[in-house]
Parts: sequence; C-alpha cells; structure tokens
Amino acid sequence: MNPTLEIFSQGEEVVTGQVVDSNAAWLAQEAVQLGFTVTRHTSVGDKLDDLVALLREISSRADCCLCTGGLGPTTDDLTAEAVAQAFGLSLEFDETAFARIKQFFDRRNRAMPDSNRKQAMLPHGALRLDNEWGTAPGFALQAGRCWFVFMPGVPSEMRNMYLEKVQATLQQRFVLQPQTLITIKTIGIGESDLQQRIKSVVIPDNVQLGFRASLAEVQTKLLFSHDYPSTAIDDLVKSIAGQIGDAVFAIDGLGAASGDVITVIDQLMTDGKHTLAVVETVSQGMIASYCTALPWLLEARYQQTSPINNDDFWEVAKNIAMTTQAQSSADFVLVQLHDADLSAIQDKDSAIVLYNVLLTGHQFHQTTHTVAGPGKRKQHQAALLALDLLRRFLQHKDL
Amino acid sequence: MNPTLEIFSQGEEVVTGQVVDSNAAWLAQEAVQLGFTVTRHTSVGDKLDDLVALLREISSRADCCLCTGGLGPTTDDLTAEAVAQAFGLSLEFDETAFARIKQFFDRRNRAMPDSNRKQAMLPHGALRLDNEWGTAPGFALQAGRCWFVFMPGVPSEMRNMYLEKVQATLQQRFVLQPQTLITIKTIGIGESDLQQRIKSVVIPDNVQLGFRASLAEVQTKLLFSHDYPSTAIDDLVKSIAGQIGDAVFAIDGLGAASGDVITVIDQLMTDGKHTLAVVETVSQGMIASYCTALPWLLEARYQQTSPINNDDFWEVAKNIAMTTQAQSSADFVLVQLHDADLSAIQDKDSAIVLYNVLLTGHQFHQTTHTVAGPGKRKQHQAALLALDLLRRFLQHKDL
Repeated sequence: MNPTLEIFSQGEEVVTGQVVDSNAAWLAQEAVQLGFTVTRHTSVGDKLDDLVALLREISSRADCCLCTGGLGPTTDDLTAEAVAQAFGLSLEFDETAFARIKQFFDRRNRAMPDSNRKQAMLPHGALRLDNEWGTAPGFALQAGRCWFVFMPGVPSEMRNMYLEKVQATLQQRFVLQPQTLITIKTIGIGESDLQQRIKSVVIPDNVQLGFRASLAEVQTKLLFSHDYPSTAIDDLVKSIAGQIGDAVFAIDGLGAASGDVITVIDQLMTDGKHTLAVVETVSQGMIASYCTALPWLLEARYQQTSPINNDDFWEVAKNIAMTTQAQSSADFVLVQLHDADLSAIQDKDSAIVLYNVLLTGHQFHQTTHTVAGPGKRKQHQAALLALDLLRRFLQHKDL
Repeated sequence: MNPTLEIFSQGEEVVTGQVVDSNAAWLAQEAVQLGFTVTRHTSVGDKLDDLVALLREISSRADCCLCTGGLGPTTDDLTAEAVAQAFGLSLEFDETAFARIKQFFDRRNRAMPDSNRKQAMLPHGALRLDNEWGTAPGFALQAGRCWFVFMPGVPSEMRNMYLEKVQATLQQRFVLQPQTLITIKTIGIGESDLQQRIKSVVIPDNVQLGFRASLAEVQTKLLFSHDYPSTAIDDLVKSIAGQIGDAVFAIDGLGAASGDVITVIDQLMTDGKHTLAVVETVSQGMIASYCTALPWLLEARYQQTSPINNDDFWEVAKNIAMTTQAQSSADFVLVQLHDADLSAIQDKDSAIVLYNVLLTGHQFHQTTHTVAGPGKRKQHQAALLALDLLRRFLQHKDL
C-alpha cells in the first residue's frame, strides 16, 4: 500500500481565483511518479483559524503533505504561525535562515526590509529548507501521522526547492515504489483514433494507460508499476508505438527526453544542414513563429489570397513551391493552401481542408487534413500539420 | 457578512495532477464578484468514501458549494451516488433528463450507449440543471447548511451551465452584495512602472487594488464594495487611467467589455477602412498570427537578416517601409528591426533593442523598446509592441 499524500496551497489569490493553482498539479504529478497515492488537494486563504483547522485535519488523515505559499514577509503570510498554533510549537529565530535572507539582499545591493526578519522564524524542531532562489526558506516537520513540507508559492522557487531539497528527503523517509512513466508523443492524430489503433494491444492490469491532448501534440501515457520488468516495458512500448505508426514523433521515459516536435525538427534540420522557406495561409505566421530564432528558417511569407477557383490545389501549391524555390536560397520549400475564405476560417462551426506541399530538391511530398474549431485553433493546427509533413519527411524519407 | 462558498472539484485526473484545475479559479472569480466570500477549494479523486466524507464536511461548514466533475457515464463518475449516500437520499430516474441525453445523441446521428442512462439518475429532491452543451445534466440541492450545485467538469460545459443556469439561482437564493470590478488594461508598461505612476492617487480602504500581468497585457484591477457610489467609481478610474497615460488601451467594467488589444485594433482598422502590410524580424510571424483571419492584414513577411552594420536603424526601417508600400496595396506599413543576432534572441540573459516604424501615407511614427527573457517571450513582446504602435496611432493620431 503506497503512503498517502495531500497537497495544500495557501493564499487568498488562489482561493479567490486570481491565480490558477498550477503548483498543485505539478507537485501531484511528481508525487505520483515517486510512488505516493495522492488523495486530496486543498486551498485556503489567509485566515489563521482556517489554516490551523486544516493543518490539524491533514495531520490525522495523510502520511505526507506538500504545502505551498504563505512564507512571504508580509502580515498575511501566516503559515509558520499557523503551524506553531496547530501543533503547540514555539516559533524560534533561525540564525542561518536569517543570514541567508540577508545575503540574498546584499548580493543584489539592496537593503533588507525589516519585515523579512519574520521569514527566519521557524517552528521548534522543524528541518530548515534553504531557498537559493528567493528569500523565503521552506521547512518540514512531523505532526501527528503526517510529514509536512512547506515550500514557497512562487512556482520557480517551489520547483527548484522540491527537486533539489525535498524529493531526496521524501525518498529517505518513506518506503516508496516509484513507477515508470513512458510518454509516446504524436501529432496529426486525435485521441479517439489513437485509442482505435492501439485497441488490439493487450494492456496488463498493472499498467495505467492515459491520454493527454494539447494543441501541439497528443500524448499516450503508460505508467508501469515499480516491479514491471524493463524488457517487458520496452516490448509493450514498441508494440503500441508500432500500432500508432509514423504519427509518433518521440518517446519519452526510455532515455533522454525528446522535447516537442519543433525540437525534433530542429535537430534533424541542423544535422542534415537543410534550410527552409515557407508560404503560409491559414497558419498566418504561426509556422514561422513556432521556429523561434532557428537559423535554418530563412524566410516565411503570409499573403491574404482570394479562394482558388480551381479544383487542383495541388497544382497551384506545387507551382508556388517551385517559384519560391527559384527565388530563395533555401533547399526545402513548404507551402500550405486551403479551400476556405477568411470568414470560414474564423467560423468555429466550419471545417476547412488543408493542402500541404513540401518541395525537397526535385521531389514533392504532400499531405491533406481537415481542421475545425475556432480560428485560433485552426491556425495552430494548420501550422503544426504543415511542420509535421516536414518532420515525417526528415524522420522517414520514404513518403 | 457575505455568505461563504467553497469550490469542490472531483476527478482522479485533477488529484493526480494530469490536468490543472482551471475550473476552480474561474468559479472562484465569478463567486467573489457575485458577493460570496470564497473560503476553500478541495479536490478529491474517484473514491466513494472520500467523496461522501467531503460532502458531509462541506454541508456543515459552508453556505454554498460549487462542484465540478464526476457526472459522466462511466463507473468512476460517482458524484450522484456519493451525494445520495452522504445525505441519505435515494437516486431517482429523471424522465426529462433521460430524454435530453437521448436527444443529444439523436441530433448527432449516434446511438446512445447504455452507460449514459446512469446520467439520468438524480438524488431525490434535486433541482435538475439541463446541459445544452453536453450529455451530463447538472443538479442542485440543499443539504445541511449548504446549497450544493453540481456541474460537469468539461470547462466549456461548466462555464455555459454556470452562466446560463446557476448564476441566476444563486442571486435568488442568497442575499448578495455584488462588488464592482473595473479592469484598466495596458500594454507596453510593466507592473512596477504602473505602480509608480499611480502612487500619487489615493486609493480608499474599501477599494481593493490588484495587478495581473500576462504576456499580452497588464491589468490594473479595482474591486469596489457594493455601496461605492458610481460617480465616485468613475472619478477614481479616470484619475488612475489619466496617471497611466496612453499605455491604457481599454477599460472594462464601466460598459461593454473591450476584448484584448487585437480586438481594439481590429475595430479601429475596420472603422477607418485601413489595410496593413507587415515586415517582421524578432516577432517572426507572430504579428501576423495575432491577427487571425482579419481581412485588413493583407500581407506579412519574415526574412532572416544579418545584423545591420549601421547605427541608423531608423533610416533602414523607413526605407524598408517605403519599398514595401510601393509594392503593396496596403495603406499602412509596419516594420520592426532590432540590434541582435539569432543567438541573442534565443539567449534568455540577453536584452535586445527593437525599432518599430509605422508608415501611414507619407507620415512616419516610431517607437523603441528593450525586451529581455527567453526567445519565445521576446517574440511575443516584439509582436505586441509593434502592434501597440499601430494601436496608439489609431487611438490618438497625434504621435
């Protein structure tokens, strides 16, 4: 049985909805992978009574609790005080914590405001967690059944502190059976199509299958129990990736992380010493904008065009590609046409058809797709599907 | 004293961190503006005992609870069952709910799976909330001290149901004193500069001042108590907006909502019957991509350029603008140059200088900015700051 873990976020700005609590999701994912069973997330605001009541609840309910927020220098940062009150502990001045806070200001040539002194007051017996990324030190302590870890609410400080100070102590204090997470990343295929393609593969009971779709990719996630043999992991992953086919652009979790589809394309374009010119329509600048400051993208052009009065989009697209090739020093040209006018692109209830042509030397490669939804979504999809034609050519060369 | 409200999100995918719970923040903001005091957010997974325990807790603690998730057709959707068990209610088949679910499938020419029948089982005495945007009906009921509202977890369905079915019933059931939220939207100015500019304005105690920065804009938010006189609201907002100056592109909350800076520009370009051609560098397609399918953007061009060996960026930019004007049918031309090479754009520790030129007929307008941070951030900022030059010209004409 895995130890149970709760996530607790403190802050009026979380409770009133001024910020979306992305810390909770991030910590929960880390905890699940480490081998905890996450049972509950709670956020409360800056009221001392609410904080005290919640801390006591959790101390009798969970084996571990990861807490964020409320460690700042202002009067509404009440975490240490609430911990002291909830568990009958005194607050004690920590010399080292104070010296580090002071150092933070000294290094920036700024005077330390008096209010920051408060951040060096820690509950008696707490383990101090130094913050090398901001002023608020974190701390951890056992109360009742629960090992509490208190971290800053600023996401970058919290993540650094978790990865460099907290994770290792959790692995020491708990008997954990970390799971293995494999992520198969695809583009140009929807979630239901993915499910259809892999349904012939038998997924054992101790493997958890999930899907996660974003604008840029669809991820098939496999979470393997700690005792799953690594050769069996390899076999299952290979078998699933094989069923999905060339929509797979990367697999994470078996070795080095691969990044997104742009990272994959960048690597292949750089290795092959290729350069690219792009003609955009529906994507309207987004193909270029995905390739932030990448040297192999030499030029990109968007031109508002009247709908083509012609059934042969391919012929028109190929002609544009050849003309562009003649004028450009790029060795690859990517052209995307479509069958719609601007109002159909904006209309979320209209589907439109995309015609992608990639010219490499004298060879043409082409794909066609239908995209739907609001204009912004069509634009992203159009850009990614055009780039995916380039990715498929670079990875497989046999289109 | 405002009634208290809690937010409760059900779902294994929330608790394990596979999705960030954006529903909670959205609902909390709505509830605060309506006049509730939001005290707590909780998420639990798909375990019946956890759900029952939590519902009982909340029923004795809060005046109202907005719940999302767990209304789907599968076996891990347990909300109705948990409610029935927590409060000793029977589950009853709702004919109307069932007819509507069936209709949802009929309209899409799909057969209704048997599992969806479960969604028509509602706790005895519950008020049904019809879902016109999906299959899962919501419901609401009083239990103990608390009025519970159960909505689907799919954000679009939840938002529609809240706005069209739930909000009005909350206003009927509770004595609420809605606050007035005014949002002053700016671009091209940072949060600390904003604070500096408005520090001479006295903000009364019953007005809550906050800032919210996104890539696209910085918002100054003023939340006025329900009894704040509307003329005094007008006066304070005018005085603050006056101090900020022409970085203000819109003010929301006094009349119709204004949308983002692109919506504002679109309105002005359309009203003035203007058209635009763009030459992009650092923004690399993003100026065009922000203007999704807007008819007044005729063309946009990105060309990778070597750093200009010349101190006079303005002269080069103006020449490019004139050349583009001569070749294009657009009456406005927007050009952006910069002082960096691609590696400086990508380097998060390098700041770069942007030179924006707008040519309208025979008139040139220009702005310059320094941007820093990762490449993607520079790209967004570059696009927005170029577009903001256009916005300032259109709104003020006196640059």
